[in-house]
Amino acid sequence: MSNNEDKPRFSLPVHVYCGDTDAGGVVYYADYLKFMERARIEWLRSLDFELDALRRREGLLLIVRHADIAYLRPALLDDLLTVTVDSCAHGGASMDLVQEVRRAADATLCCWGRIKIACVDAKTLRSKRILEKLLAEIADVR
Amino acid sequence: MSNNEDKPRFSLPVHVYCGDTDAGGVVYYADYLKFMERARIEWLRSLDFELDALRRREGLLLIVRHADIAYLRPALLDDLLTVTVDSCAHGGASMDLVQEVRRAADATLCCWGRIKIACVDAKTLRSKRILEKLLAEIADVR
Amino acid sequence: MSNNEDKPRFSLPVHVYCGDTDAGGVVYYADYLKFMERARIEWLRSLDFELDALRRREGLLLIVRHADIAYLRPALLDDLLTVTVDSCAHGGASMDLVQEVRRAADATLCCWGRIKIACVDAKTLRSKRILEKLLAEIADVR
Amino acid sequence: MSNNEDKPRFSLPVHVYCGDTDAGGVVYYADYLKFMERARIEWLRSLDFELDALRRREGLLLIVRHADIAYLRPALLDDLLTVTVDSCAHGGASMDLVQEVRRAADATLCCWGRIKIACVDAKTLRSKRILEKLLAEIADVR
Repeated sequence: MSNNEDKPRFSLPVHVYCGDTDAGGVVYYADYLKFMERARIEWLRSLDFELDALRRREGLLLIVRHADIAYLRPALLDDLLTVTVDSCAHGGASMDLVQEVRRAADATLCCWGRIKIACVDAKTLRSKRILEKLLAEIADVR
Repeated sequence: MSNNEDKPRFSLPVHVYCGDTDAGGVVYYADYLKFMERARIEWLRSLDFELDALRRREGLLLIVRHADIAYLRPALLDDLLTVTVDSCAHGGASMDLVQEVRRAADATLCCWGRIKIACVDAKTLRSKRILEKLLAEIADVR
Repeated sequence: MSNNEDKPRFSLPVHVYCGDTDAGGVVYYADYLKFMERARIEWLRSLDFELDALRRREGLLLIVRHADIAYLRPALLDDLLTVTVDSCAHGGASMDLVQEVRRAADATLCCWGRIKIACVDAKTLRSKRILEKLLAEIADVR
Repeated sequence: MSNNEDKPRFSLPVHVYCGDTDAGGVVYYADYLKFMERARIEWLRSLDFELDALRRREGLLLIVRHADIAYLRPALLDDLLTVTVDSCAHGGASMDLVQEVRRAADATLCCWGRIKIACVDAKTLRSKRILEKLLAEIADVR
């Protein structure tokens, strides 16, 4: 939706295993945040950023400041899900990502989230400017 | 804050164990949702509602429809936290809860959330009216 | 090791995300069991068995009866792991699997487990004979 | 059982919340390890040892080297469990603990584990002698 034509939106396939479900037979509400985290990390990796390297080489952490999550349809055991990442806005020291979790079989939207990620100094935890090259990549993705 | 004088706000003490933290040395962002769930369930239990009994006797499920979570200060390994539940609004088939996670030692607010809970039929998953006696309890708590 | 030459041992790549680690900076000890479960389920899927279908069509559950886990070297954030499944023995109603979790980069063995899986009736939870075709597949894998 | 008469065995009450269960309606097999960890940490705390202080003041980590877990009866949503810790043996740099998870209502043994804990240097991760005062406490508990 917010992508240009050349760069498809990043998406990660995720299988729902037993450990991701609860006694209701559906994915436990906190586990969607794990799925979204996995997709964000693979998205960053696809842009050539690794969290551990960011921390060690640049002294930067990317931390979640805010998560706004809507639970729309339950995802079930054995479902294959598609988790997407869209960069929808960013300042100099934070970025807003929109993430969707859809059932792969029929594209049902199970869970939708807007996640604000802040860039902070790994030692002081104070806001720091996001690396230019990451900003450039995000701008490209939009 | 939103409580009357006779009924103190419900709060649950939670210890931070190793399994709740991540490599950053802080509570993992999805685990605050687990803490909040524990507090909601103990709050309901304190009002004499058990989820399992609600399902079996009344055919009702309480499910999370929306979670709006702000991460303010990191909670750390071995911290003793206080997780509160406040009922801030409700319709006939849903209720909005405000939940805070504070460090017990100094009342630092680590995480704040507004959680919308919907009451649904356990079989059809359609909205159902919340039990009168639960509504009455919630009204009292406000 | 225990495979014949035609059938390579089943293995699943697993990335270590933040949610899998603890404040020690390493994979949390319970999370290796999640990785092993994922590998077992994908292994079963590769043999054309889905847990959910087993339950609904055959009335069978596969449950873990025993887990013997040795923690040898810590797996770290951002590690790419390889999780394997070997069937090492089986009776009529249970099977023993050996599972290894290795760092993909250098094949370091991080965690080793022997898992006993029992086949039970989904309603009574009593032991039931494993499906012949699953036994045949396991025999093949040995 | 292995306690002397003056020192009762350490036990921790644990409620089963939705996030601890899986689609089978029972506690997920990895989550028993979380319950056992909580009991171990509270047991250590009751002996006046905090993991974080051990690490910072003494440069020591206590890590799990081996876990041997038998799953006997499923624990269910809303169950109140009792998780115990018994010290059954120790060398100079490790100790073996026996842990039981029982349903509080009827003392049904759900899960049994023997956990080997090693004491290591927080930096080198090499074996280090367990503090004398912890050894003394453990000896007392036996």
